[in-house]
Amino acid sequence: MPALFERMTVIGVGLIGGSLARAARAKELCAEIVGYGRDIEQLRLAVELGVIDSFESDIAQAVEKSDLIVLAAPVGAMRDLFLMIKPHVRKDALITDVGSSKQSVVDDAAQVWDELPEGFVPGHPIAGTEKSGVKASFAELFEHRCTILTPVPQSAPWAIDKLRKLWEGVGAEVAMMDAHHHDEVLAATSHIPHVLAFALVDTLGRMQERKEIFRFAAGGFRDFTRIASSDPEMWRDICLHNSDAIIHVLHLFRKELDTLEDAIRSKNGEAVKTILQRAKQLRDTNVVV
Amino acid sequence: MPALFERMTVIGVGLIGGSLARAARAKELCAEIVGYGRDIEQLRLAVELGVIDSFESDIAQAVEKSDLIVLAAPVGAMRDLFLMIKPHVRKDALITDVGSSKQSVVDDAAQVWDELPEGFVPGHPIAGTEKSGVKASFAELFEHRCTILTPVPQSAPWAIDKLRKLWEGVGAEVAMMDAHHHDEVLAATSHIPHVLAFALVDTLGRMQERKEIFRFAAGGFRDFTRIASSDPEMWRDICLHNSDAIIHVLHLFRKELDTLEDAIRSKNGEAVKTILQRAKQLRDTNVVV
Repeated sequence: MPALFERMTVIGVGLIGGSLARAARAKELCAEIVGYGRDIEQLRLAVELGVIDSFESDIAQAVEKSDLIVLAAPVGAMRDLFLMIKPHVRKDALITDVGSSKQSVVDDAAQVWDELPEGFVPGHPIAGTEKSGVKASFAELFEHRCTILTPVPQSAPWAIDKLRKLWEGVGAEVAMMDAHHHDEVLAATSHIPHVLAFALVDTLGRMQERKEIFRFAAGGFRDFTRIASSDPEMWRDICLHNSDAIIHVLHLFRKELDTLEDAIRSKNGEAVKTILQRAKQLRDTNVVV
Repeated sequence: MPALFERMTVIGVGLIGGSLARAARAKELCAEIVGYGRDIEQLRLAVELGVIDSFESDIAQAVEKSDLIVLAAPVGAMRDLFLMIKPHVRKDALITDVGSSKQSVVDDAAQVWDELPEGFVPGHPIAGTEKSGVKASFAELFEHRCTILTPVPQSAPWAIDKLRKLWEGVGAEVAMMDAHHHDEVLAATSHIPHVLAFALVDTLGRMQERKEIFRFAAGGFRDFTRIASSDPEMWRDICLHNSDAIIHVLHLFRKELDTLEDAIRSKNGEAVKTILQRAKQLRDTNVVV
């Protein structure tokens, strides 16, 4: 049986792009895997590690023979990448991405193509670690995780179907929703926690007691701030490209924090306990440990 | 060689009290371990699990023969417990606690005793999990963790010395500081992260997309909100008993969050990246993974 794809081009062979390449190879979903990126050292390492078969330094050669093109770069780079690949992509190529904001990717593509290609289907695997780079990639990253596809009206059924098979093939559960809705949900579950973790660590770093603070931090702090070790460039892009949803959820969060702080300030034990209890119950019943 | 203590009374045999009892037994630091608490089922379970030798339902009998009394109850219960044990404690008993706020414990004791006993030395092991109850206790909880002692002027050298030996005996590194300073440091590293995690989970629980939000939460969210599963009663008490320091650090955090939000709103990528990068570097260099 032939593989699902003849030739996959991964643009940006880091944690996510590298893990998808590894998984696609392990599951024999792509006959050939080619890398492209701005960091030649990462690409060389990716070949050494057997993550990709080869890499190209010319974008035309990277994409023109491929029936699958995966953009795994920070979302701020998408528009330029679309411009670069546009003249060279096959008409029947599936073009997708793994960006953490989806409306911005759809908007960027719509600015580049007068008519969006029927092979264009944005996607977002809800998986990752605080690490970055191809060295941190591993084939099992997507197993039992969700991947959200946000097709546009122009996305052809064959393209959606093949992309679903790719993600299911590497172990993910696939869900579909529109880009705007995706951005609201992800702002709440992923972007706001990152914003809060980055902000808290930076706050503590400015305090006089800084050295002691980090010395006396326990496991709870370590877990809470793990995501503050994530790639600043990738997260800068997410903050800017999903700013509306982030600011909306941040507004809700601030209102809640006001309520909790008022209860603490006025020593209203019942009010404090009510919020804490509700939060504990929500997490215990909804988050899989 | 005789054990460090003849008889330890643990008041509140939960995660921390139970773990200290287990560790003290494993390291042969106490010849006998007695429990006291308001939840008779927990005490029965603690005997069954071999965490304590026996329990008393009368406070006089629980403490009068003990040379070590450890209060491992929520900090809101300390004042009443001091009142209860005061008529019955031995003059040469070491009286300590494991509460997460320390100034409030010192203040409570000062209200109960005209002259603080020379055996009184407050303490706080910087260790724990999001679980609670004696079933979650384990002897290794304090290994390679810090315990902070906050002696008062009345604390006798012999008492400080014996308490240090107890904590070092169960594997902890011991540090000393005054209660007020402890409360500032812990507000930053532990109390504020808990407040933010509780507030965020409660915020998301109020959103319309609530079900999807929890469905599409990944590992980062799980780690970030783990502490929101902590015991609401214990954390209500910490919020109320360290409210000044919590409100102070929350103020610094809000200022930082304002700066980051402004940068996101105005799409100032450089300003966003600067904060994210500084936070990542702080965490990577200061937090032991």
